[in-house]
Parts: sequence; C-alpha cells; structure tokens
Amino acid sequence: MRGSVSAKPVARQQQRAHAKMSAAAPRASQARAMGVGAASLGSRVQVASRVASSPSSVATKAVATEKPSVTLNASGKGKKVLVIGGDGYCGWATALHLSAQGYEVAIMDNLVRRLWDQQLGYDSLTPIASIQKRVAKWKELTGREIGLYIGDICDFEFLTEAWKQFMPEAVVHFGEQRSAPYSMLDRERAVFTQVNNVSGTINVLYAIKEFSPDCHMVKLGTMGEYGTPNIDIEEGYLDVEHNGRKDTLPYPKQGNSFYHLSKIHDSTNMIFAAKTWKLRITDLNQGVVYGVKTEETALDETLINRLDYDSVFGTALNRFVIQAAVDHPITVYGKGGQTRGFLDIRDTVRCIRLAIDNPADVGAMKVMNQFTELFSVNELAGLVKKVGAPLGLDVKITSVPNPRIEAEEHYYNAKNSKLLDLGLEPHYLGDALVDSLLKVAMEYKDRCDHELILPANNWGGSGVSRHFVGQKVASA
Amino acid sequence: MRGSVSAKPVARQQQRAHAKMSAAAPRASQARAMGVGAASLGSRVQVASRVASSPSSVATKAVATEKPSVTLNASGKGKKVLVIGGDGYCGWATALHLSAQGYEVAIMDNLVRRLWDQQLGYDSLTPIASIQKRVAKWKELTGREIGLYIGDICDFEFLTEAWKQFMPEAVVHFGEQRSAPYSMLDRERAVFTQVNNVSGTINVLYAIKEFSPDCHMVKLGTMGEYGTPNIDIEEGYLDVEHNGRKDTLPYPKQGNSFYHLSKIHDSTNMIFAAKTWKLRITDLNQGVVYGVKTEETALDETLINRLDYDSVFGTALNRFVIQAAVDHPITVYGKGGQTRGFLDIRDTVRCIRLAIDNPADVGAMKVMNQFTELFSVNELAGLVKKVGAPLGLDVKITSVPNPRIEAEEHYYNAKNSKLLDLGLEPHYLGDALVDSLLKVAMEYKDRCDHELILPANNWGGSGVSRHFVGQKVASA
Repeated sequence: MRGSVSAKPVARQQQRAHAKMSAAAPRASQARAMGVGAASLGSRVQVASRVASSPSSVATKAVATEKPSVTLNASGKGKKVLVIGGDGYCGWATALHLSAQGYEVAIMDNLVRRLWDQQLGYDSLTPIASIQKRVAKWKELTGREIGLYIGDICDFEFLTEAWKQFMPEAVVHFGEQRSAPYSMLDRERAVFTQVNNVSGTINVLYAIKEFSPDCHMVKLGTMGEYGTPNIDIEEGYLDVEHNGRKDTLPYPKQGNSFYHLSKIHDSTNMIFAAKTWKLRITDLNQGVVYGVKTEETALDETLINRLDYDSVFGTALNRFVIQAAVDHPITVYGKGGQTRGFLDIRDTVRCIRLAIDNPADVGAMKVMNQFTELFSVNELAGLVKKVGAPLGLDVKITSVPNPRIEAEEHYYNAKNSKLLDLGLEPHYLGDALVDSLLKVAMEYKDRCDHELILPANNWGGSGVSRHFVGQKVASA
Repeated sequence: MRGSVSAKPVARQQQRAHAKMSAAAPRASQARAMGVGAASLGSRVQVASRVASSPSSVATKAVATEKPSVTLNASGKGKKVLVIGGDGYCGWATALHLSAQGYEVAIMDNLVRRLWDQQLGYDSLTPIASIQKRVAKWKELTGREIGLYIGDICDFEFLTEAWKQFMPEAVVHFGEQRSAPYSMLDRERAVFTQVNNVSGTINVLYAIKEFSPDCHMVKLGTMGEYGTPNIDIEEGYLDVEHNGRKDTLPYPKQGNSFYHLSKIHDSTNMIFAAKTWKLRITDLNQGVVYGVKTEETALDETLINRLDYDSVFGTALNRFVIQAAVDHPITVYGKGGQTRGFLDIRDTVRCIRLAIDNPADVGAMKVMNQFTELFSVNELAGLVKKVGAPLGLDVKITSVPNPRIEAEEHYYNAKNSKLLDLGLEPHYLGDALVDSLLKVAMEYKDRCDHELILPANNWGGSGVSRHFVGQKVASA
C-alpha cells in the first residue's frame, strides 16, 4: 500500500493552520507499524502522544502537486526502531521518514540540545515545536504513532525501563553531544562531551547485549574521525602491508576536537563489543549535513526541522545560506581550502534506512562513509553567492581567523561507495537546493540574531574557566 | 654526591624493626630535591609527612653487602615531578626511585585502589603500609621528603589546588583504573573505567595547558592498546603507503577490554592536545610488569610494594609465581600461546626516568614501547616450574577456560628500541629473578587466599547486573 498526505504550504503566519487530507482505512501491516504496545508508564519513562488511531487521519494519495505531500507505505513492515536523539536535526527527520516508511518508531531523547540553546542564548532559525506537539501533529496528519521516551541514556535505569517497554529490533543512535566547537568551549564541556558520548554508547551496547542481542545498532559517527590524512580515506578499515606481512586494521583516525575524538572512542569501543559479544553494529561516518526540508518535515510547520546558524551548532553550508539571507558576509574560516564530505538531509534519512535494512553481520562492525560529495569551504561559499544573486542578494564572502587548529589546504579523497552499492540515489547539491534553502532562510530571517554568527570560541582558548556565551551575547 | 642507605633484611616478624644507618650532612642540591616548599594546606588538599629534615637520617655509603641498600644521588637536580597514582604498584616504586635520584617528588593519589581491594575481598600478598607511613619511613631512612596530595584528579578543583601548590615540571600519570578484568566485571565498572581514565587524563592536559604549559607529561599507556595485529607493532605510529601515497599515522589499535580501550582513548586525546596546544607529551606503552623489589622498596618492610595475585589485579608472571609458592597449579588461560611484552619493575622505574630526562618535543606526542622481552604465557609457566624445583616446589601447570575473548595463538612482533636507544640497560628475566620472587611469595604465603586465584569473571559474562565478588568469596 502506498499513499500520500498533502498539506497546504505552510508559512509562519499559518502556523496553526491544519492540513486537510482525505482518509483511507489502514491495512493490518500498517496498523502494526503504528502500534506502540500497551506498555505501562514507569515513573521515569514518559511515553507521550499515544492518541488513539483514527482511520480518518490515515494517509492517501497526493491531492495536488503544489502542496507538500508525503509518501506513506508499509515497506518497513512494522520493524521496531528506536531513534535515540530523535528530537535533533538528523534524528527528527529520520524518525519521521522511518515512520512514513512503515517502521514502528519510538524516539528517545533527553531534550538537552534545547537546553544548550537556552544556556548559550541560541535558537534555531526555524521555529521548532516541542517534541510532544511534533509527534502529535505527525499522528494527526498521518495516523502514525511515534513513541516517546524522554530521558538520558547515560541513566541506565531509565534506559533499561524504556528499552524493555519498547524492545527495539534496531536502534539508531544519534544521541550525543555533536558539536565540535561546543566540546572546545572549556574544560568542563570537553569532559562532558566525552563522558556523555562514550558512556551513553557503552550503555546502549550493554542494553543490546543483555536485553535484545539480535538488535542491530546503527550508530552515527562522523567523517571528522578520519581527520585529513595524506592518503585516501577508506570506509572504516585499511588494508595494510608492512614489513612483508598483511592485515586489515581499523583505519587510523585523527580527530580534531574533543567531540570528534569522542566519536573515535565510540567506534573503538564498538569494534570490541561487536567482536566480543557477537553483536550487529553499523557505524556510519557521516559528512556535514545540509538542507532543512524532508518530505515529511515539510508537511506542516509544526513538523519543521531545526536550522542552526550560530557558530557553535551551525554547520558550513547551512550557516552560509543563512548569512547570505540576512545580509551578513559569509564567514570562511581561514583560507577556506578545508575539504569535507557533505550530504543532503534527505539523503541522511535514506542512508539510515538502508543501514537498517541491511544489518551488519554479527561479530564484525560494519563501517560506511555517509556523504555524497566532497566540497571545499570556498566552493560552498561561491555556490551560495552565485545562487543568491537572482534572488536579489548581494552576497559577500569574508575570511575570519580560523577558530580551529587545522590544515586549511590538504589532500582529501574519501571513499563512499558502500551506501551507493546498497542503492542510495543521492540528491546532489545544486542550485535548486541552495535556492530552496535560501528561501527558507529568508522567510525566517527576522529570527536571526547577528551577534551569534561570528566564532564564539577558538581551540587555543579552550580553558579551565567556564565559557559564558550567554553573558557575552547579553553584553553585546 | 652519591651515598647509600643500608637496612637490615626485613621479614614479617621484623615489621617494626628500624634499620640502623649512619649519618652525613645533606648538600645544598640535595636539600632542594628534598624540599617541598612551605605551601599552606588547603581544605581539600592534604599534604602529609612533612617531617623536619634531620641530618642524622641522611644517606651514606653501604655498610655491608648482604643488607638492602639504596643509592642516593642528586642527578635529578631537584626537578619537580608529580607522580599521579604514586601509591600503586608501579607508581610507588617510581616515586621512590625518582626521590632517590634527586628529583623533588610529590605523590598524588586518591587511594581508591586500596578501596577496590576491600570491596572485592582482595589483598596484596605483601603487607603494604599506608601511604602516610610509607613516605614517613622513606624520609626517616633517607632524609628525602615526598609530598603527598590525597585526592582525585577527576575532581578538577582538587587537581587545580594541588597543582598550583606543587607546580610540577614533569608529571608521571599512572592514576588510572588499570585492570582489564575489573573493567569487564559489569557495565558499571566498564563505564567507570572509561569515564575515570579519560576524564582524569583530560583534566591533567588542561592543568598543564593552563597552569604550566612547559610541564612534560609522561603518561602510562599499555602494550595492550595494540592488540595482536598480523603485522609488526611499531612504537606509536605506522608509516603507511596506500594507493601510491604516503603518510605516517597513529598506529591502528585494537584493545581487548574496556580498560585497554580507555588507554587508546587517552592516547587519541593526547595526540590532539599535544598538536593543538603545543604540549610536551610522552606516551609509554608498557608491557606486563613483573617482580616486586626495587632497590628502594627493598630497603625496609614499611616500603614494601604491593604484589597482587587475585584474578582481577594479578598479572601473568607474578600470579604464576605466587600460585607456585602456595602449591596451587599455575592457571594458564586456554592454550597459553598468548604472547606479550614483559619487563622487570626495576626497569619500569628506569624507563620513567629516561622518559622524564628526554622530554618530548612540543606539538607531537612521543610514543615509546616500554617492555624488554616477549614471552608466551606457556614460556613463563615453564620457567616458574623449572626454577621452583630446586626450591622444593612441585609446580603443576593447568589450563583453565580463558575468561577473555582473545587469540590464543597469533603473530606477535613488537618493537622496543626507543628506550634502549636512550640508554636503558634491561634486567632480562632469568632464573635469579624468578627465584627471588618465589622466595618473597613463599615468605608471605600464609597471606594468600586460594579462593581468589581462579578467574572471577569472563568477558562474555560482563553484564548489567553488578558483579559482587566479595559475596562470592564470602560464601565459598
């Protein structure tokens, strides 16, 4: 069964407008995909948005091409997928995509990413709804239910209760502190980043081992784990010949922030856990994600994804587009020759699905590099400038002192064939995506605080004194 | 100035007997090496054993060859060295050796290693004195003072206060949870091991960066970080040629317990910190240490070093010797073909000194493999059996199920030339050492609890339930 939900184009003024849609009866397989089971509510495990399923809200085919619409199907066959960090940028888009594809999805998130924005005086350019409203709206629009477990995976008592309620068949683990600049703000945040990320991942490994050893773990790593070696970057492992002998070894990694290093630690731990406990683990070394809309998040403004432009959580292309939209010069760090792997958020969600559908073998961690194209920072800045012109934007590009200690010109050739071999059809970066993203940024430009654009911290300045970003902003 | 202190041979019955020695006046350079400065006592920083220096307790030449004696000199020129974990097996021996060699030494330790013994129902075979009594005795015998900072380096407030009082010129970092089996007891201890080790090391890195950027960090890693690759093990880095391009990269590591992995994480973090903050860091990948006596610890029974024989903290050769001494079969794990690097504890202390005296360059972590010989487990067991016979011991060797998930027969060729190039003259393992160690073990054999010898846990059984070793022992 395939169907699609249509909704009116949404804008800030229409935030409360509900999309109209026609109805169809759900099929049995789809019904299973929606169900979350009648689990009791533990005192530490909050399960929200279990609105009764109503046939009237179930998807049907698209009404008109100009309206946002989403394809619903049951190809996920109700496989139970726990999305840890499902309130975040990649996690939210992934949770909706998997739900639309007929997986039974539950989100686990402690929502601390929202707290960090509050503490640092930041905010998403796009107005994101609460996670409770998000999943309620998704249910209202599609009839599909997403379970919600609010809590911290570093709290193993919480993790245990939630895990045993949901009993996932696959777990997608986005639930980490994911900003390099955040990890370099000060000593406390450096330690926090590593303790939080490493402990959470170890806890998930133990939960799988003890409660559901067949559960497939799909863990988000980063291409930043590899650093910028002077040789080709392979997918996780390197065939080495040395003094006449051969072995295939974990690819030597050189992260460049306490955040990137935390992901290396995770990978190192996971290789051991997969081998020692015969687990199924896939490590996805993701590139820099750009874009904001996916088919699912575009359905209604309540489902809108976050879009970060601040110097701590904003990433290269998204940040440049927003700078262009608000008439701020694009801030290239140093020479701008830094080359990295990039991908569209619409490909992130598809890659995760491909990973889930093609589980790793037991005992040997599978590693795939999750990006579709390589760009230098200068190339991205130039693209934004070019696409901005027809929209009336006079985009300027400026070099600012690089807050990071990194090579600004270097060899970079990273492999990414594994996900393509599994059938990924990339959305390559083109004028259309940049144009679309610029329009989103222009729509919400009044929400942008220009003070947050310039680098707030640098790698050399990371110290033992707390970095009070909020204070700095307040006095600016 | 060179001198030596003599002491009577010590035995358990003579624990309170004080060694007699003659006196000589300290020279100025030595006096500096002894001084710890008149720092005020912070509420969280305890500085103990600052007994007034008395010329009558200062060293002189050896009285008789059959008595234990120690060489004192001032070649360390009063360089201030902080030994983190200085109450442990390697740390205590190192602190005394450096003090004897004329460095100004302070020990930093939270003494939690002693707590773990209490919690697990373990004890050193040798009767170790409290750290306060240890340093007081050292001062009494040699006139040399060792500062004492009791606290946890994971508590950055403590670390900061202690650091600023002592202001080390070099720091030797042994202060980690160092047992692979302990890290595999259960989930809580796995997480603890990684959080404790990684956080503590990051804190030390920040302390150096912020308070004394010229301070040289000598960090204890382990040969176990490398695992058992099918290629030669180099010292920290590997020259790689791949697809026609070359680079020198961190050696790919494959640890085999959450403990070993924690040391890999440390190394990965330290490479980054050295590069980013231009620090001087040496990483010493140490092999399995054997032996118990050093020149300094043998001086008096109050200075005696710990000797672990339990299955969690005991290591291969020491454990085999004790098993032989107490008429327990030597327990070889599995086939016994596991080959590792080993060294005498008398070489550990010399290696540390060589590392301190030859600081790493700023910006690039120096890695040295700290072992002197390679042995398989079966070779060690056979050696103990052979040396035991003339002592009247009928040593049996038995294979027990391997608690670890590891290759029991494998290629192993690890390099160790860097410390030899710096002048290390190894104490190679021979009959004499095993004979001496067997005699120590036989002297204290009544303190051995046979119940603690067999493996208490295995890698596959590491779970979310707490592993109550003490309970198991109590009911045995």
